[in-house]
Amino acid sequence: MSGCPFSGKEYQFKITYSTTEEEDDSQRGIDKAAKGGLIYGKYLQLDKILNAQALESEKRHSKSHDEHLFIVTHQAYELWFKQVLWELDSVRELFIQNHVPDERNMLKVVSRIHRITVILKLLVNQFAVLETMTPLDFFDFREYLFPASGFQSLQFRLLEIKVGVADNRRVPYNRQHYRENFHGQESEDLLRSEQEPSLLQLVEKWLERTPGLEEDGFNFWGKLQANIEEGFKLKMQKLEKEPDSERKEDMLQDLKKQREGFTSLFDSNHHDDLLRKGERRLSYKGLQGALMIYFYREELQFQIPFQLLNSLMEVDTLMNKWRYHHVCMVHRMIGSKAGTGGSSGYHYLRSTIGDRYKVFVDLFNLTTYLVPRDWVPKIEPQH
Amino acid sequence: MSGCPFSGKEYQFKITYSTTEEEDDSQRGIDKAAKGGLIYGKYLQLDKILNAQALESEKRHSKSHDEHLFIVTHQAYELWFKQVLWELDSVRELFIQNHVPDERNMLKVVSRIHRITVILKLLVNQFAVLETMTPLDFFDFREYLFPASGFQSLQFRLLEIKVGVADNRRVPYNRQHYRENFHGQESEDLLRSEQEPSLLQLVEKWLERTPGLEEDGFNFWGKLQANIEEGFKLKMQKLEKEPDSERKEDMLQDLKKQREGFTSLFDSNHHDDLLRKGERRLSYKGLQGALMIYFYREELQFQIPFQLLNSLMEVDTLMNKWRYHHVCMVHRMIGSKAGTGGSSGYHYLRSTIGDRYKVFVDLFNLTTYLVPRDWVPKIEPQH
Amino acid sequence: MSGCPFSGKEYQFKITYSTTEEEDDSQRGIDKAAKGGLIYGKYLQLDKILNAQALESEKRHSKSHDEHLFIVTHQAYELWFKQVLWELDSVRELFIQNHVPDERNMLKVVSRIHRITVILKLLVNQFAVLETMTPLDFFDFREYLFPASGFQSLQFRLLEIKVGVADNRRVPYNRQHYRENFHGQESEDLLRSEQEPSLLQLVEKWLERTPGLEEDGFNFWGKLQANIEEGFKLKMQKLEKEPDSERKEDMLQDLKKQREGFTSLFDSNHHDDLLRKGERRLSYKGLQGALMIYFYREELQFQIPFQLLNSLMEVDTLMNKWRYHHVCMVHRMIGSKAGTGGSSGYHYLRSTIGDRYKVFVDLFNLTTYLVPRDWVPKIEPQH
Amino acid sequence: MSGCPFSGKEYQFKITYSTTEEEDDSQRGIDKAAKGGLIYGKYLQLDKILNAQALESEKRHSKSHDEHLFIVTHQAYELWFKQVLWELDSVRELFIQNHVPDERNMLKVVSRIHRITVILKLLVNQFAVLETMTPLDFFDFREYLFPASGFQSLQFRLLEIKVGVADNRRVPYNRQHYRENFHGQESEDLLRSEQEPSLLQLVEKWLERTPGLEEDGFNFWGKLQANIEEGFKLKMQKLEKEPDSERKEDMLQDLKKQREGFTSLFDSNHHDDLLRKGERRLSYKGLQGALMIYFYREELQFQIPFQLLNSLMEVDTLMNKWRYHHVCMVHRMIGSKAGTGGSSGYHYLRSTIGDRYKVFVDLFNLTTYLVPRDWVPKIEPQH
Repeated sequence: MSGCPFSGKEYQFKITYSTTEEEDDSQRGIDKAAKGGLIYGKYLQLDKILNAQALESEKRHSKSHDEHLFIVTHQAYELWFKQVLWELDSVRELFIQNHVPDERNMLKVVSRIHRITVILKLLVNQFAVLETMTPLDFFDFREYLFPASGFQSLQFRLLEIKVGVADNRRVPYNRQHYRENFHGQESEDLLRSEQEPSLLQLVEKWLERTPGLEEDGFNFWGKLQANIEEGFKLKMQKLEKEPDSERKEDMLQDLKKQREGFTSLFDSNHHDDLLRKGERRLSYKGLQGALMIYFYREELQFQIPFQLLNSLMEVDTLMNKWRYHHVCMVHRMIGSKAGTGGSSGYHYLRSTIGDRYKVFVDLFNLTTYLVPRDWVPKIEPQH
Repeated sequence: MSGCPFSGKEYQFKITYSTTEEEDDSQRGIDKAAKGGLIYGKYLQLDKILNAQALESEKRHSKSHDEHLFIVTHQAYELWFKQVLWELDSVRELFIQNHVPDERNMLKVVSRIHRITVILKLLVNQFAVLETMTPLDFFDFREYLFPASGFQSLQFRLLEIKVGVADNRRVPYNRQHYRENFHGQESEDLLRSEQEPSLLQLVEKWLERTPGLEEDGFNFWGKLQANIEEGFKLKMQKLEKEPDSERKEDMLQDLKKQREGFTSLFDSNHHDDLLRKGERRLSYKGLQGALMIYFYREELQFQIPFQLLNSLMEVDTLMNKWRYHHVCMVHRMIGSKAGTGGSSGYHYLRSTIGDRYKVFVDLFNLTTYLVPRDWVPKIEPQH
Repeated sequence: MSGCPFSGKEYQFKITYSTTEEEDDSQRGIDKAAKGGLIYGKYLQLDKILNAQALESEKRHSKSHDEHLFIVTHQAYELWFKQVLWELDSVRELFIQNHVPDERNMLKVVSRIHRITVILKLLVNQFAVLETMTPLDFFDFREYLFPASGFQSLQFRLLEIKVGVADNRRVPYNRQHYRENFHGQESEDLLRSEQEPSLLQLVEKWLERTPGLEEDGFNFWGKLQANIEEGFKLKMQKLEKEPDSERKEDMLQDLKKQREGFTSLFDSNHHDDLLRKGERRLSYKGLQGALMIYFYREELQFQIPFQLLNSLMEVDTLMNKWRYHHVCMVHRMIGSKAGTGGSSGYHYLRSTIGDRYKVFVDLFNLTTYLVPRDWVPKIEPQH
Repeated sequence: MSGCPFSGKEYQFKITYSTTEEEDDSQRGIDKAAKGGLIYGKYLQLDKILNAQALESEKRHSKSHDEHLFIVTHQAYELWFKQVLWELDSVRELFIQNHVPDERNMLKVVSRIHRITVILKLLVNQFAVLETMTPLDFFDFREYLFPASGFQSLQFRLLEIKVGVADNRRVPYNRQHYRENFHGQESEDLLRSEQEPSLLQLVEKWLERTPGLEEDGFNFWGKLQANIEEGFKLKMQKLEKEPDSERKEDMLQDLKKQREGFTSLFDSNHHDDLLRKGERRLSYKGLQGALMIYFYREELQFQIPFQLLNSLMEVDTLMNKWRYHHVCMVHRMIGSKAGTGGSSGYHYLRSTIGDRYKVFVDLFNLTTYLVPRDWVPKIEPQH
């Protein structure tokens, strides 16, 4: 952390064109710190940060060396969760302010969601550190931690809620709603977060306003449906000329199935069914906006939105990767059987990895609706 | 952090051989937390950790979104530095207790040094997060930080000292000894650390006692010298038979140079010269012990010591990689010219990357003294 | 790749003690390459490696830029799989040669297994590169690849077999045995590998010979059973004195369950039942050896074996992480519905992630049998 | 590599809304591969890739286990270099086609440059694999490699040239121009690449056309100069009122220095001087375009260009990180002294790490010219 990008305002304009050698340059500074002002350790409140490691094992006069690692690792996770929430809240705020954030905000939105993915990648890799602790070392102090549980991490629950994990798709924890594990202020924080619009909901609203969806305007959805119908008609006609009757029959079946798939895409009742089952999460119009961004991603105003959709999928994937690496670590630490008494441990965690915790599932499934380029409605150049 | 390896003692023996399906297993826990006891957030002192982010820009009513990232990142670094110091101190303690730690301690020593390397790798990768902040975003609040500087990180200096960075090889900072930047308790902590034995010194003492070095015993050094001399003599004799005189002359020159190199290896005065210049750091006997471990690394009692030597080199390398990635980030944030007024910034940092901050330089240079396997003195099987 | 650790033998002894500055040192070399000899590109057979990228899309006059990435990524995976197999075969060979490889081989064994974990970590991270390809870019050429499938990767199957994935626990692929997808030489290679001893089997044999297991010698198992019985007896006696009858009853139930768990540990018939169900994979005696290494890991001769057990678990975990990250990528590329016609794609892959593909499952579950340190039979110092 | 995103065209439209359980879904596929067509191994030309590892040590009947790792690692590097060149050439082509690539190309450009950064990150991490080889293991076969050298990697030189490393800033290699180490076709390839426009030059041309630079239009540069002059004038006036004369003098000196810095920014002769010295690489107008993008990065048409500038800096930084990690590995393998005979090895490599190999140095230094937001010329909203 030496030297560092800290630096005072008065130097911001300075430029020197020294031709002297590097060794000299390295000694050219003036020690401005001597004149007083902000101190590194005070600014970072290191007195708090570095005095927050109290070993339970030490309190019991049986100091366990590795408990320090256990504490520091969890604190580092919580620090980063705070940062992720900071970014997430700011992005939600940008969406809320404007309902449709004007395009000038989009660079900020996409940069901050990208930053979340970078942090989540770090957090996935961070398990490597805790994995240097063997199960035997953990065994030395794990009894003292009872009944504290990572399940009680408020921030991780807030993170899930604010991204948009569906409350009704959560795996119950010991047959209880997850919120039962929190009390007082924490319980209230969770409840309030659930009532605020999630990132999913805000993205949905934004997608619904994608320019080009207006039925009395470009009417993307109507045009797309017409093109697809026309496309299949032509394919059918072409198929008629196929001489090999067995092959023809095969291809006909394939084509019919494909057409059925698309027919259902344009059926809003079908969409609502899937919404109820939780297999889709976006509104019908939101889905249309997302598909539009996919198809026209090279247009100036859709380039950043396209990046955003990709980053949202990455957030989803990384949260699942985090869960999976977490399960792997727990399995190594306590085995698959252990913990079945007081906590469902490994088995509970395993059950949270599936698709039910995915939020932007519709974006993943958009690939199902890709069509040949010449079926995509032509758009007028934007200038 | 959900679910987690926290788990109470009473479950440690439990095994259940359920044949039911996983979904059920996941709900099998009993909510022991309801009965009271340690709470996750209290154990981790999250009230301290998560309330230690005070933005200077916010105090000036000009909240800069990215300052939060800046603070959290630095706090995460300091948290991990604390953990590295924890491991480092425990390893030094293991060495100090025993002078020669008995072999039963070596698994702990090597595991903890390995853990340090894993943490340092994380810290090198962690720059990726701060790199999501652009120089423009940094510009928004960097004036408020003046004159705080990462150079003031006490823990990083302690880390350098405790590993064994040579005080007289440090680059001065604005023409001052680095310790001038610290005051009061911090200055005392640094001074005391400098007076305690560093990891380098403790490893040196341990290497000096490598079994087999005793002149009146196996006498590794004497035997090696004899073998090398004999080896060169044989090579010379063989060379005599070379018919091509030009080629013979070439090879003779090569051989002589090689022999000179080895002659100097067995010259303790030469070693002392290099020590004074700082080109070697280990005592002559320590160097012998290290070479012995290299040659006999497959012997049972040298396997873990060999791993240790490799890990020590990795610590050195990773600290330099950390410094280098840090320089890269600073360069991106403030450019190569900026900061030359109040701090030597980029140029100062660049000057710290060279070999002068390397501690286990002798281990890196051991490769210079590798010899053909049949020149290595034969050792008796250990059982 | 510049400069590089390639370097000729004749320099190995050379040492120069230049005091000149670095700039000069950097130009001190003599251009020996000019004299002929091995060439970098020929040595690496780059004519093969760099001319093995033929785009199917290009053959169809519809060049898809991203197909090149697709090919190169898969080739990089296969290159590394070859290296993993190289290490795996060498380790298996070390075990086979000696039945019990003498302890001098253990450094090699543990280093090579460790190297496998480092490669697997790289391979997990390597998905990040392919993830820069969007589903839309993939859509442009994926039709041309039909019906090639990564499922046809011979090396990955060999890897699974050689580590010890249980044939009868594999998920069938489209209702077929996985080997049905391979023909000719490849099919034979697979069959032969299945007949050779797997890493699991070789490790098992080695564990069975752990010194100290001999019933007529140290008799670890017998002593452990006696200690555990004695331990529970003492706990029961202590419990008798508990005044609070409700609490006493609770604790009594817990204690009984724990004892049952351990009773079953010493029941070889029970072990055989679990073996048949596939819930255990190691022989009864192998399990005993592993537990012994766990308990006595700080003894000189068990330090490296303990590292080996940890690395084996890591191999298992990393292969599962690889599978999981692979699933995530596939989900992003083709969605959860796609591929249900010709390949079960996403759903098939998801089904392979569970514990059924774990090999060293017994090592993970050893933590279930940890006991207080004073229950562990005392061992005589080894010297 | 199992299962994989390979999948045939006919399935792309298929959607099934199965409600059956996952286990069944995983078996739902039809084995289309049986009907013939593209085979995984043939497509990837694995016969070439996996048969390109010939150990020199084996040819000499002294098989060295680790030489296989050495070969595979270098091959993996070369494979990825090929991919980086593929991306780099396509980006250069996009720029060349259009001189100013129309904005629709910018998503492609920025995505591909981003992909290069992802690959380079992988390559930096990939050293971890080779670092599992100890110097002693390398010693076993390095004599056989003589005089092959990574310096002979054609692709890495092409990469440097195509990005835009300045020929006249290269460190000579054993006092020779680097191209002297290549012959025949390779030498011609290098020469031709040097004559083609580099990424730096193409980016420069593109920057020069940044809309808003026209002197008879928005006239960014003229307006900026006026604002800065006005800004300093106001600061001077404000400073007049400072009562403390010593403090006033201090601040006056600071302000003057700052103003000098900016005066030189608007001095095109000064720019040309720096160009000649190699301290700047972009044309004066190109620099102006870059600064404009910095200031107006939130405008719709500058969002992606801003991302591009950041990614270009990242490419630069990552190539330097690659060089640095490479040096670290070489140091560990051969020490700092070794190799001084035939190749300048470590010292040569160290000398290539400095800023002289940086290409987009001007972008790094732009931060020097940041000004308060209200000094930035107001731009009209774009719509």
